[in-house]
Amino acid sequence: MRSLLGTVCIIGVGLIGGSLARAIKQHGLADKIIGAGIHENQLERAVQLGVIDDYSLDMAHAASQADLIVISVPVGAIEQIMASIKSAINANTIITDVGSSKLGVIESAQKVFGTLPKGLIPGHPIAGTEKSGVEASFAELYNKRCVILTPHSNSDAQALAKVRSMWEQVGAQVVEMTAEHHDEVLAATSHLPHVLAYLLVDTLAQMQEHSEIFKYAAGGFRDFTRIASSDPTMWRDICVANASAILKMIAAFSAELEKFSEAVAQHDSEQIEIIFRRAKNARDQHVIL
Amino acid sequence: MRSLLGTVCIIGVGLIGGSLARAIKQHGLADKIIGAGIHENQLERAVQLGVIDDYSLDMAHAASQADLIVISVPVGAIEQIMASIKSAINANTIITDVGSSKLGVIESAQKVFGTLPKGLIPGHPIAGTEKSGVEASFAELYNKRCVILTPHSNSDAQALAKVRSMWEQVGAQVVEMTAEHHDEVLAATSHLPHVLAYLLVDTLAQMQEHSEIFKYAAGGFRDFTRIASSDPTMWRDICVANASAILKMIAAFSAELEKFSEAVAQHDSEQIEIIFRRAKNARDQHVIL
Repeated sequence: MRSLLGTVCIIGVGLIGGSLARAIKQHGLADKIIGAGIHENQLERAVQLGVIDDYSLDMAHAASQADLIVISVPVGAIEQIMASIKSAINANTIITDVGSSKLGVIESAQKVFGTLPKGLIPGHPIAGTEKSGVEASFAELYNKRCVILTPHSNSDAQALAKVRSMWEQVGAQVVEMTAEHHDEVLAATSHLPHVLAYLLVDTLAQMQEHSEIFKYAAGGFRDFTRIASSDPTMWRDICVANASAILKMIAAFSAELEKFSEAVAQHDSEQIEIIFRRAKNARDQHVIL
Repeated sequence: MRSLLGTVCIIGVGLIGGSLARAIKQHGLADKIIGAGIHENQLERAVQLGVIDDYSLDMAHAASQADLIVISVPVGAIEQIMASIKSAINANTIITDVGSSKLGVIESAQKVFGTLPKGLIPGHPIAGTEKSGVEASFAELYNKRCVILTPHSNSDAQALAKVRSMWEQVGAQVVEMTAEHHDEVLAATSHLPHVLAYLLVDTLAQMQEHSEIFKYAAGGFRDFTRIASSDPTMWRDICVANASAILKMIAAFSAELEKFSEAVAQHDSEQIEIIFRRAKNARDQHVIL
């Protein structure tokens, strides 16, 4: 019997691509998984770890064998990858990705392919850790996590069904929305928090007494800044790819910060408490612990 | 043999005061622990749980029996507590507190007592969780945690030695510094992170689609905003008590945020990466995991 996905090509076998490969293998969803990328030592390690079956540094060669291609590289590199595999795909090839911004991926595809391929189903698994690389990958990463798919107006229903099925089989809950809405939601819940964590640590790191200051950082600080240990390259790309939604969120946050500063400057206990209480209530109500 | 601390009065038996009481008992440091406060049900519960031996709603009465008084209430209430116990203390009474800002405590003492009592040793254990109340207290809270003491110029050496010894016996590492320096360090490592977490959640909570938005919040968001579930009253007081150091930190952070926004608006990948990489390096180097 043929597997659900046939031959899968994963371009970029790091934490995200590697974890998906492991999960696909664990659930027997593919006949073969071929890794592709630019870091040969990572790809070799992925074969050693049994994450992928084979690899190629020639992306077009790897892609030409695939029924489904998963592009799992930092979003800034997606356009170039698309250009590399353009000649290797056919009308039946399904292409998905895992990028944290989706409008940019669709724009890139438009630019590279001329018209958007029917088999292109942009996607984003909301999962990850602050670690990077295939060594950190594990098959359960997507279990009970949310995956957002943002099909374009010309996306093929069968291709969409297959990508959806892949994620569901590895334990994820799949939601569909427009790329634009995805980018707004993620700017709020993921991109802005990462920006704030990075900038907080950087603000402290630039203070004169920074090595003393970090000494007094307690558990709250450690948790709060965990995401500032994430891959800078990946997050740099996300900030450029989703610049407009992120700038909108930064503006909203800055306005809030300014209003708050005024309350503090005026020792306005009442206003400060209103803000803190509203935030606590929202978090306690909405964030699943 | 007399215990190290004699009779201890803990004013405010919540997470912090309750955990200290438990630890003092566990290590046999006191003859008796009397709780005092305004929430009788909390105090009753504390007696039931064996956290304290007895309680009184009359703070002066409780304080008059004590060799050592620990004020563990939100910093905004410390001045009032000092006024309540003023008549009950004598030249040998040791008074310490656990407030997250220290200049304000010293100013309050100056105001209430006229001259700073020799037995006053302001302190701040850098420990806590986002939970509140005596039910959340546990004896190990201070184990391997840092406690900052900020004696004033007139503080008695023996009183300082006793407070230091108390914290060391319950497992903490004690550091001494000026109240001013404490307030700057804590504004950076604790107060600013709490402000950012509260304001982030509040910014999202005020967006139209907020209940949908929180649905897509992943693990990073959960950790990042954990401290936004902290007690709003306590943090309101800290923001007022340490307003000037906090405003300085907010200004530094806002400047950083503005510079970053410009880099994003200009799609300046290089600059964005410099900031993110510097932050990641600082965190990986300085924050003990």
